[in-house]
Amino acid sequence: LDYQHVQVPFEITLWIMLASLAKIGFHLYNKLPSVVPESCLLIFVGLIMGGIIYGLNDRSPPVMDSDIFFLYLLPPIVLDAGYFMPSRPFFENIGTILLYAVVGTIWNVFGIGFSLYGICQVKAFRLQDVSLLHNLLFGSLIAAVDPVAVLAVFEEIHVNEKLHILVFGESLLNDAVTVVLYKLFRSFCEMPTIKSVDVFAGVGKFFVVGLGGVLVGLSFGFTAAFTTRFTKDIRVIEPLFVFLYSYLSYLTAEMFHLSGIVAIISCAMGMKRYVEANISLKSHTTVKYFMKMWSSVSDTLIFIFLGVSTIGENHEWNWPYICFTVIFCLIWRALGVLVLTFFVNRFHVNTITSKDQFIIAYGGLRGAICFSLVFLLPDFHRKKLFIAATTVVILFTVFVQGMTIRPLVDLLAVKRKRESAPTVGEQIHIRFLDHLLAGIEDISGHWGQYYWKDKLEYFNSKYLQKILLREYDQPKSSIVLLYEKLERKHAIELAQAGQLGHGPAHPSFLCSAFLCSSDRTVITDQKLEETLNPEVLDNMKEILARNLYRIRRTGPAYNRHTLPGDSEPTEQAKEILILRHKSL
Amino acid sequence: LDYQHVQVPFEITLWIMLASLAKIGFHLYNKLPSVVPESCLLIFVGLIMGGIIYGLNDRSPPVMDSDIFFLYLLPPIVLDAGYFMPSRPFFENIGTILLYAVVGTIWNVFGIGFSLYGICQVKAFRLQDVSLLHNLLFGSLIAAVDPVAVLAVFEEIHVNEKLHILVFGESLLNDAVTVVLYKLFRSFCEMPTIKSVDVFAGVGKFFVVGLGGVLVGLSFGFTAAFTTRFTKDIRVIEPLFVFLYSYLSYLTAEMFHLSGIVAIISCAMGMKRYVEANISLKSHTTVKYFMKMWSSVSDTLIFIFLGVSTIGENHEWNWPYICFTVIFCLIWRALGVLVLTFFVNRFHVNTITSKDQFIIAYGGLRGAICFSLVFLLPDFHRKKLFIAATTVVILFTVFVQGMTIRPLVDLLAVKRKRESAPTVGEQIHIRFLDHLLAGIEDISGHWGQYYWKDKLEYFNSKYLQKILLREYDQPKSSIVLLYEKLERKHAIELAQAGQLGHGPAHPSFLCSAFLCSSDRTVITDQKLEETLNPEVLDNMKEILARNLYRIRRTGPAYNRHTLPGDSEPTEQAKEILILRHKSL
Repeated sequence: LDYQHVQVPFEITLWIMLASLAKIGFHLYNKLPSVVPESCLLIFVGLIMGGIIYGLNDRSPPVMDSDIFFLYLLPPIVLDAGYFMPSRPFFENIGTILLYAVVGTIWNVFGIGFSLYGICQVKAFRLQDVSLLHNLLFGSLIAAVDPVAVLAVFEEIHVNEKLHILVFGESLLNDAVTVVLYKLFRSFCEMPTIKSVDVFAGVGKFFVVGLGGVLVGLSFGFTAAFTTRFTKDIRVIEPLFVFLYSYLSYLTAEMFHLSGIVAIISCAMGMKRYVEANISLKSHTTVKYFMKMWSSVSDTLIFIFLGVSTIGENHEWNWPYICFTVIFCLIWRALGVLVLTFFVNRFHVNTITSKDQFIIAYGGLRGAICFSLVFLLPDFHRKKLFIAATTVVILFTVFVQGMTIRPLVDLLAVKRKRESAPTVGEQIHIRFLDHLLAGIEDISGHWGQYYWKDKLEYFNSKYLQKILLREYDQPKSSIVLLYEKLERKHAIELAQAGQLGHGPAHPSFLCSAFLCSSDRTVITDQKLEETLNPEVLDNMKEILARNLYRIRRTGPAYNRHTLPGDSEPTEQAKEILILRHKSL
Repeated sequence: LDYQHVQVPFEITLWIMLASLAKIGFHLYNKLPSVVPESCLLIFVGLIMGGIIYGLNDRSPPVMDSDIFFLYLLPPIVLDAGYFMPSRPFFENIGTILLYAVVGTIWNVFGIGFSLYGICQVKAFRLQDVSLLHNLLFGSLIAAVDPVAVLAVFEEIHVNEKLHILVFGESLLNDAVTVVLYKLFRSFCEMPTIKSVDVFAGVGKFFVVGLGGVLVGLSFGFTAAFTTRFTKDIRVIEPLFVFLYSYLSYLTAEMFHLSGIVAIISCAMGMKRYVEANISLKSHTTVKYFMKMWSSVSDTLIFIFLGVSTIGENHEWNWPYICFTVIFCLIWRALGVLVLTFFVNRFHVNTITSKDQFIIAYGGLRGAICFSLVFLLPDFHRKKLFIAATTVVILFTVFVQGMTIRPLVDLLAVKRKRESAPTVGEQIHIRFLDHLLAGIEDISGHWGQYYWKDKLEYFNSKYLQKILLREYDQPKSSIVLLYEKLERKHAIELAQAGQLGHGPAHPSFLCSAFLCSSDRTVITDQKLEETLNPEVLDNMKEILARNLYRIRRTGPAYNRHTLPGDSEPTEQAKEILILRHKSL
């Protein structure tokens, strides 16, 4: 037996296998996932496993390595989130999202930090050795809403699109703020004195970290799109580029201390449109499927590890500090949402209702990012207290808030997501309104979102598409693409029901082929007549005459780039009438 | 800049990126890949990169780590090979393949080992310190044909299926022999004296290593199939199980010193049939696509690393030893193929022609497995000589033989692969003949391959399918599956050409729906009549009457598990006649 040799890949494979089997196990009983969110169940499995390991070895089970989390487990989830991000609601609410993510997070950090410092001043709690800076550092890691936890819960409760994107977008974009504040306070903790220059540098750093992440992401995204222009002959490695470039953007951003999450999201959103047009349909299925699979496994592993890491001896229990942390997290978030939404609602027609505000505040779940950050703290004598407090906050938000949010959504009758996809008519009207609003904004001189969207679209079709798309001379409108997609779906459904290929398709083929030959050249017609039996020919001609309108109708649809003409029905009706008169 | 932190994943991603970009680069010029095999070009890229690294750093570039090769790069390629193995030709020629793989490899090992020992006795060559055991050890690693190299060349030259499977099957199954002999001689080298017991143990070990690998692989394969029975509600992680179980089978086999290659091939071949039936169509596309992608990247990385590792200072040059190694490799392989084929041809009706024999002997390429094994040798003073000889043999076989085999195949007019897939008629006849031959073998008491195949098929449908398939009560014959596949393909083609959804499909749908309602219940019919305009209704009835035969025809095809009836055309013809008479 040579276990040493294969240990690393063997154990990784076994962990992934365990995660997948746990997932299958939950779904075997249909009732379970509808009551308890999967994340809770997975943490529970992790707790049991951690307990077993602790019981057998009599020492703390291994803690989730922060490096493994940030380098291998987090990127797939964020990539999936960015690639499948509904771009329209995201950009429509980008202002609100940024306000929540930036101002809201800063508000929470300082709110929690200062009020915990206040608690520390109470002599009875024996916490006087925790300095203000340490409290602020703790606040910076505990304040941020976690995208993994939010996604796990909100994917199941199906609230309306706007509410979903507000919470989820905030959880993604607050990464830049968290990175800056966390690193700033950590370096302040190690400095002997803090100058005001350092504070201003910190404020400047925020813009560098956020915008730098966007820049790194977009440049990798466009490079990916450009690369897929040349993969026509080796379709099989196309999906690879999507993953490689996204991952490189994340790693590069991390390397330069920029926000990796922001980078990978920009990369995915930037490349998606062009990559989809360049790669083959099968490649795209693979990309989508694998992304979902990967993020689903990462997600499962994170929650299981979270459970396993909770068990052990690296906690210092202090009732007041831990309880007040949970309470302050709830209060400051609720206050922040109320105040910020008050300002948002003053400038918007589509206001955020008080129900929505409650769900936004209540949906502020904490997760594995806080957990990894607290373990990355430099060693000091109260680190174990911070670990304990973070663990409790995570478990409280995931279990209590995560399990009660669905009944609350039902109880409050929060507006749900519409089930059906928009119809072609709706899509046309939305686009028409967009153009109209862009025109109005242009005339009125107001540079609003529609104006910028129109300019961006112009830049895209004028320059970007020519560089990044393989077949840029034949741009398809999204409606044609939608039509093709519907046709394909319909065709597959028909084939599965066994409806295809009998009768209708073939005669019309035959007829139209025949019609072409008889119209264009008499010679081929004669040749054809010589080769065909006269009886068959008569028969065909009769079918031809009777079905003439049908041929006309299928005629223009031969071209894959045009929609079948809508102006013909009157002509068709006439023809049918004439034919019927004749037969009568 | 924090490079340390992201170094490992960053460099791995960059290497994969380099490999993928190199692949794209070759395919940009269409002529290049048709003249030079990709493997040669990739080694060339590796040589250049190695030269650059050597020139810049002034020390040997990093050598491909044997652990990385055996644990991460080899499994995807072998999994791909096993999963897409054409099982029929493989099992038809299993005897010949095993003869080549086992007896042929042993023949080569001892032939090369002893004759190199003979060369070492010549005083002028200054090689007298290389013992017989060391020569045999060297023989054991240089004798084995490499599946990666063979696949890379043979995939491009399209020889006939039998020839392909003979060379490729040999290259896969000789792994068991190589593992045993290599480990045996290596342990002999370290033993003070060798007892005859050890030799017998070595012979026994061969069966353990080979059959053990098969057992491990099959058990993991069947477990994988069993697991996919329960993934109906979480389709998205289905592809994962195929990869996880295959990889676990490989690692488990390696852990117990069994043949990992044999294990993963058995696993893939064992699971394929059941997994395909259990998982969804999209999952299966993802599995196939990702397998091809992964193996293609591994393959590329191996050849680039091979090139990089060649450059450096770990070679000891000795002209006679190296030249004679190349010559003996060629001679002993040619002799082995001739002698073994002589015996094979005596017992078979379908003989292997002399042209085929030449290609089998000439196609014995060496590759990265030898290269990794030679670096795994224990340190002794002539290791660098062995490394040099191995490198030369690999480069010689890949470059000289790999580049000339295509012209030779053209020159000798070796039978090529048939381009088209077998028709449904052919498939039916092949199956009919199989049953016939199984019956004849059963009656004549000869337990040949058809007898065993029939027994296996019986066992499969009687027990295995019931355990491993989700919907075992509705087994589909392969012809129905083929039909469904063709229909689906046809439907997608039609949808892409824009032919679908106009006219034919909808009226027949409408009519049949209407027919059902009017036939079954009068109440619903009346309700329908109330809601519909009388004129429309008359119109519909007329269409209905005229197209009655068409409805009958599409009727039975509603069921997705039955083929549309073939016995109806006469009835249809009658109906059409009656209708036409009426209209006249």
